[in-house]
Order: sequence, then C-alpha cells, then structure tokens
Amino acid sequence: MTLEEARAGLKKLQAKLSAYNHATALIFYDGVTTAPKGVAENRAQTLSVLSEEMYLLTTGKETVELLTFLDEKKEELTEKEKRQVEILFKSIKDTQKIPMDEYVEYQRLLVEADDVWHTAKEESNFALFEPILEKIFETQKKFAAYTDPEKDSYDHWLNEYEDGLNKEICDRFFGTLRERLVPLIKKIGEKEQVSNDCLKGDFPFDKQEEFSYFLMKTIGLDLNKVGFGTTEHPFTISFGSHNDERITTHFHKEDLSYSMFSVIHEGGHALYDTHSAPDLAYTVLDGGVSMGIHESQSRFVENILGRSREFAYYIFPEVVKYFPEVGKYTEEDFYKAINRVEPSLIRTEADELTYSLHVMIRYEIEKKVMAGELKVHDIPSEWNRLYKEYLGVDVPDDKRGCLQDSHWSGGSVGYFPSYALGSAYGAQFLSKMMETVDVYGDLKKGDFTNINKWNEEHIWKYGSLYKPGKLLSMVFEGKEFDPEFYIEYLEKKYKAIYGIE
Amino acid sequence: MTLEEARAGLKKLQAKLSAYNHATALIFYDGVTTAPKGVAENRAQTLSVLSEEMYLLTTGKETVELLTFLDEKKEELTEKEKRQVEILFKSIKDTQKIPMDEYVEYQRLLVEADDVWHTAKEESNFALFEPILEKIFETQKKFAAYTDPEKDSYDHWLNEYEDGLNKEICDRFFGTLRERLVPLIKKIGEKEQVSNDCLKGDFPFDKQEEFSYFLMKTIGLDLNKVGFGTTEHPFTISFGSHNDERITTHFHKEDLSYSMFSVIHEGGHALYDTHSAPDLAYTVLDGGVSMGIHESQSRFVENILGRSREFAYYIFPEVVKYFPEVGKYTEEDFYKAINRVEPSLIRTEADELTYSLHVMIRYEIEKKVMAGELKVHDIPSEWNRLYKEYLGVDVPDDKRGCLQDSHWSGGSVGYFPSYALGSAYGAQFLSKMMETVDVYGDLKKGDFTNINKWNEEHIWKYGSLYKPGKLLSMVFEGKEFDPEFYIEYLEKKYKAIYGIE
Repeated sequence: MTLEEARAGLKKLQAKLSAYNHATALIFYDGVTTAPKGVAENRAQTLSVLSEEMYLLTTGKETVELLTFLDEKKEELTEKEKRQVEILFKSIKDTQKIPMDEYVEYQRLLVEADDVWHTAKEESNFALFEPILEKIFETQKKFAAYTDPEKDSYDHWLNEYEDGLNKEICDRFFGTLRERLVPLIKKIGEKEQVSNDCLKGDFPFDKQEEFSYFLMKTIGLDLNKVGFGTTEHPFTISFGSHNDERITTHFHKEDLSYSMFSVIHEGGHALYDTHSAPDLAYTVLDGGVSMGIHESQSRFVENILGRSREFAYYIFPEVVKYFPEVGKYTEEDFYKAINRVEPSLIRTEADELTYSLHVMIRYEIEKKVMAGELKVHDIPSEWNRLYKEYLGVDVPDDKRGCLQDSHWSGGSVGYFPSYALGSAYGAQFLSKMMETVDVYGDLKKGDFTNINKWNEEHIWKYGSLYKPGKLLSMVFEGKEFDPEFYIEYLEKKYKAIYGIE
Repeated sequence: MTLEEARAGLKKLQAKLSAYNHATALIFYDGVTTAPKGVAENRAQTLSVLSEEMYLLTTGKETVELLTFLDEKKEELTEKEKRQVEILFKSIKDTQKIPMDEYVEYQRLLVEADDVWHTAKEESNFALFEPILEKIFETQKKFAAYTDPEKDSYDHWLNEYEDGLNKEICDRFFGTLRERLVPLIKKIGEKEQVSNDCLKGDFPFDKQEEFSYFLMKTIGLDLNKVGFGTTEHPFTISFGSHNDERITTHFHKEDLSYSMFSVIHEGGHALYDTHSAPDLAYTVLDGGVSMGIHESQSRFVENILGRSREFAYYIFPEVVKYFPEVGKYTEEDFYKAINRVEPSLIRTEADELTYSLHVMIRYEIEKKVMAGELKVHDIPSEWNRLYKEYLGVDVPDDKRGCLQDSHWSGGSVGYFPSYALGSAYGAQFLSKMMETVDVYGDLKKGDFTNINKWNEEHIWKYGSLYKPGKLLSMVFEGKEFDPEFYIEYLEKKYKAIYGIE
C-alpha cells in the first residue's frame, strides 16, 4: 500500500460511513416524523442489518490495516487527515471492544425503546418503559466497562459527549450555578409575575408552519439545504453531510412560543452543522464537534439572541403579521412574556433561567443510577422529590415527569449536562463576539449576517477538526472557560426584567 | 457448507437486500416528497455508495458460491426457496454482465436525471433534459446488450417489466385496442358531452388530505402500515418489506378528481404489496410480481371499482361531507363526471377509455428510439404528431407533452405497456371474481371486504412466487388472457353513459 493509496482509502472509507449515516439517520427521521404507527418492527429489522454492515466496515481487517498504516505515517499527513485517523481509530478501538452481537442487539433495543417510550409517555405508564430503560442503563454500564475498564462508567459517557468532562467538573459547575441562581429565582418568585398572555391563543398549524420558515430564513439558514418537519420531541439531524440537514418542531395550537423557540433552537444546531468548511463534507470532521459546543450554538441563538429585547422588538411586528390577535399587545409585553421565569415541569418549555435546574435533576439521577445508588424502578420517586426540592413544583404524573424526554430511550446517558454547559459557553462567546460585532445593534434590525459570520469564522467552519477544549481556548484566545460570564449575563437580564436591585 | 447453513445464508442475504432496498427507497421517497430543493447532490453521493455496496453483495464470491450450491441442491428446497434462488441467480447473472463502474455511474445519472427532469418540466425545456435522456436510452440499450446479447434490446426491457412480453405481443394487443376503441371514441365525440362541473371548484389541501385518508380506509388499506405523502408525480413504494408501504398523491386546488383517483390508484398498488403472505417478508418474493399485474390491481381499484356507478353513488354523500359545494349536484352527475371521455394531453389525468391511447404513443416512441429509428432530439415532434393522430389534440408545450412523465428520467423504458396490459387483465379478473363475489352489490355499500379477500386469495398473497403467466393461468383456471373482456367491459359501460346503441 502506498501513501497515496492509503489516503484514497481513507477518503473512501469516510464516504461509505457518510452514506450509512445518511441511510440510518433518514430511517430514524422518517420514523419520528411521517411514518405510519405500525412500522417500527420493519425499521428495527433494517437498522439491525445496516448497523451490522457498519460494524463490519469499521472494524474489518482492511480498515484496521489501513488506519494502522496511516497512523504510522502520520507525520506525512495533513492536519485534517491526522485528525480523521485519530477519530476513526478511537471509534474502531472502542467498537472492537464491544462484541458485535451485543452491539447489534443494542441497536435493535433502541428502536424498540423509542416505540415503547412513545406509548409509555402517552399513557403516562413508567412500568411499561421500566424494563427497557433498565436494559439501556445496564448496557450503557457494560459498554463503558468494555471500552474504558479503568474509568467510572458515568465519567466515560460524560467524556463521550464532551471530551474532557467528568463528574467532578459537573459537580463544581452545577454547584456554582445552584449557589448563585437559586437565590435569584427565589427573589423573582417574590416579585410580581410578568404576564405571558400574548403567547396564548389560537395559532393554526399552517400559520405556525409558515412562520417557522420565516424564522429559519431570518436566522440565516439556507432553505436549499435545511428541511423542516414536525415530530413529538424536536431535534436536528444531518443526512450524511452538512449539505442535507433537517430541523423539526412540534406545534401547540394554543401556545405560540413553544414552536417558535424550538425552531430557533434547532435552527442554531443547523447553522452550526451546515457551515462546516466545504472540504469537510463526507469525512468524520463534518458537522459539530461535541454536544456541549452544539448546545452552545443552539442555545445561543435561542436565548442570547432570540430572547433578547432587541430581537423581540424586531420580530414582534412580524409575529403580528402571522398572528394578528397578538397585535393587541406591545413589544415590551412580548419581550417580558418570552422571558417569564416560572419554575415548571417540562424541561423543553422551561425559561432560560430555571432551565439549568431541570438539567441538574437529570444529571443527579443519571449519576446515581450509573453508580448503582438508585434503581431504575425508583427513578419516578427520585425525579419527583428533586423537582420539589429544586423547583418547588409537584409532579402530577410521569408523562410530565421522568417520561418527558426522549434521551434515555435513545440511549443518550450523559448527554444532559452538555445543555447547561453549552448555555454557559454561549455567554462567554457573546462577550468575545461583542469585541468586534455590534450584536445588539444588528439584532434590532433582525440582521444575523455579522453574527453568523463571526460564528462561522471562529467555530462553525472547523467542524470536528479541533477537540472542544482546543476550540474553546482558540475562541477565548487562551483564556479558560468561566461560568461567571453566564451567571452575570443571567443576573443582569433577569434583575432588569423583574426590577430587582 | 451444509444445506441448513446455505438455507440460513439465503435468508440472511435476502434480509440484507431488503435493508438496502429500504434505505434506497426511503432516500428516493424523501427526495421527491419533503427534502429541500438543493440536496440532490448529497442524495446522489449516498445512493452511489449504497448501490456499490449492493452490487458487491449480490455479485460477490460468497453469494455466487451460496447460490450455486443451492441451485445444485434445488430438489431438496421448498417451492419458495427454489423461486428465491431462481430470482436471485437471474439478477446476479444479469448484474454481473454489467461492469460495476457503469452500473454505479448509471445510478448516479438517474439521481441527476430526476433533478434535471423536474426543472426541465417546470420550464418546459426539453433541450435541458435531452442530453441526459439520450444517455439514459443509450445505457438502456447497452445494458440490454450486456444482459441479453441475442435479444432485441426493447424486447429485453418489455420482458423485464412483464415476463414473457415482447414487441410482437404488444403490437397485436395495441392493434386490437386501436381497432375497437378508436371508432367508439369517435362516436362518443359526436354525442353530447357530459358535464364535469361537479369536480371543479375550490378544494382546500387540508380537506383533500383528510379525504385521502378516508379513501385509503374505505378501500381497505391498513393505515398502520401504509403511509401517505405528497409529491409531483404520484407513486407507491415499499420500504424493504410489505409491512411498510407509502402512497403519494398530488393535490390540485381546483380539481377534486385528480387526487381522489390518484389515491385510489396508488392504494390499489399498496393493497397488492401489503397483502403478500407474512412469510414472504424480507425475501425477494415479497410484494407484487410484475408491473403488469401491479397495474392490473391499481387500475382495477381505480377504474373498475372506483369509477363504477355503484361506488360513485356510495361515495357521493361522503364527498359532500368533505366538500359541501359539491352538494348541489346529484350522484348521477358525479358518476358521469368521473367517467367523462375527452381526448386530452396528460396521461395521468386521462379518462379510462382514452387512457390506452396515451400508453400506445409512449410505446411507439420507445420502440422507435430503441430501434434507432427515432432520435431522442426528435421525441417532442414525434410525440406531438402522434397525439394529433391518435387523440386529435394539439400539444402546446413539452411540459404537457413528452416531459410529463417521470418514467424515462427514472430509467423505466418498457414500463408503459404494462399500464394498458394491466387494465385488460383487470377486466378478466372481474369476470372471474363475479362468479363468487357480489362485486356491484358490495360496492353499493362501499364494502371492500369480499372483493379484497378474493384478490388476496387469488393474487396478492402469492407475492412474486409465481411468474405472471403462471399466476394468470391459475386465476383464469387454465384459460388464456383475452383482451376481449376488457373491450366488452369498456363498450358496455361507455355506450350506456353516452347513449350509444
């Protein structure tokens, strides 16, 4: 094998992986958007075949030889190729440690889990989901032990979603947030509540859909490559490359803001994904690098930009065009309504300020289950206890409790902390961005050009070329990540809204 | 290799093929239903990788050894296994004769062709599509020559879509139809035209969608496994097995009947596919056996059942529920309107009687192009000439002329005759069915139970187990296929509607 042949082989291998990713992502997407109800078994059958094919492709003798050869010649590779080999080799080494039949079986389990979770949530029936969730947690532990036998199994998964993350860092980060935010939320609770009447009414689905497309255009998405669908639990997905992306939302007829901010949030993910440098397409460097950085982008667009006073004032007359009944309110009513702080039951509907507490509860539960300190059977009671303790709310049923999120049924244990972490990254990005971009001036005009250009230049174009730690230190020009930016941003914004000194 | 191992291998091979078929079918479906406009290149990239993988799978050494082994032991196989080996072996032998790079290149070309055809049709610009269409016809000739060097290349493709079909049979079949139907159509033209006013109006898309689901249920589709989408040119597709099927339609705001009968037609395909015997799933015997039999089912439900006086009278009050403005007409107005005979431009909108002439024109053109007697460049002028000659209509532009159908851009040359053939099979099925089923009595009640049961028992459950010729002779209890049934059915129906002696 010559170096040139190996390079061509590396390219071809990644093109194949992209194609399989396209196929499996689309099958998933179809399943949760437009597929009829009764076809989950067929989907499971296909995904189990395709995941076996991918397993054979990534762990096959030919691939291992190719990567070993390239790894030995790494000094002669470009920076991008070097990182591609590194990522592929890690994934192969990880995958090889998992017996193929267990890997394939797990893929099947997850398809079934999605189905069962949907029914369980609908019926608010945790008992139905419990045996499958138990298997998922067990498998997560087992796979972590196969891959990283030396490491704590929850630390393994935290690190998978955000390179470098572990329980110690999370405990410290969440500790700081709790210490500073809980008193602020308490003070807000003592003040007069702001009204969100302007977000309630009757908002027809077809108007909400038109408005969604308007929002997608406004935040700068290229509608030629970003599609739109509706589903139960909104998400964003790439079909094999950053040139084919879909966002999804869920419409509530009586609530304007849920889908509006869901579209902006998912749009933030899609902005990140679709702006990988063109030459990263069909390689493992295509698309966002980690869940934390991904959530930093989505929550940046959703909250820091989308819920700013300037954007609220810009978008309000547009909102009225689609939903004339909102015209009886003012811009300021609208701004306050979309920033109303109210401890509540549902994470995805939580306001910007209490959001982290929802994440913290999931983190505490995952940590305990993975450590064997909490049984899956006892998740509902622990969930309800923590919601009472942190947020002061009573959980009336599991549908609005521990069955609300799709993450666990999708096998994503260790993912949640990245939401809170991402929010905190975003506030620090803002402070850097404002050194050169008139962020709030642009938001007044609904102009995302310079904001997006800054993000593209500093974050998006790199795809997965740099690990999150390296990327952050590049953006922050050597400074460390510091949650203080986030806390100060929140304190300033919400003290003003609620008139707290 | 033991026989049991080989049998397991046969099962696994077919499961893999089903999974790849699911993936590629879904990527196609997504592309023509909900995908954003600019992602065709990404789709092409993925499909080229997956088709290469399928090529390697079906022609690989392991597969050839497996099938050779099974072929030698065929006396020990079940009837189903024997037929599976036969189908797979034929497909492998055919595929092996085509060089892999040409095969993969052709898959890419077809993806591009779909895209270019859409634009060309939109702009009514044949010149844009011409070079690609030329390549498609060239490739069809070349592949036919690789596969069947002894055979005429158009005969090869006719036979691919309908086992046993060739130009001689088509010439005779179409000759008979022309001889009997053209005079009838001429007589009708001299009579007073029936009105179709009751089908014209303003029919909102959301109501048409609700009505589509109602129709799907009425004809007996299982909505748990048959999904629904909208597209430019309606079609039906299976996702890897008969347990996951989709039909599509296209709504015209001002025209009620287009989507209504498109849904019933595609629903007929889906009824056939989804009623393969359960144990055929994930094998090559799953789903309909040939295009002719497939179209016999879809056109049977669309025309013989769906446009019967009995069904028209049954469905009319339901139509009025969805579209109250139609309430000012009578059942008889509705029946006549959906059977109005009018030589026209668009095949998919043609009435039952003139439909075969549209097919005949495409057949004549394909035959000449494949024989080198007509240049692709001259298709538009030949198309327009034949429309004038057979149907007496002037074609105003290629959009409503030779660019109207998606078949050629999808590489389906030789497919069209099966539409006319299928219609004729259907009339003969009807005469058999009526020996034991009160077809028109059931249609009066909108009850498809016994009709569907008869079809399932005689046709659907067999999937692709029997070749079309064998299947027909089983259904007809040894009698030959005879177009006379079709011609008599048409004559009786349309003479009554137009008051011809």
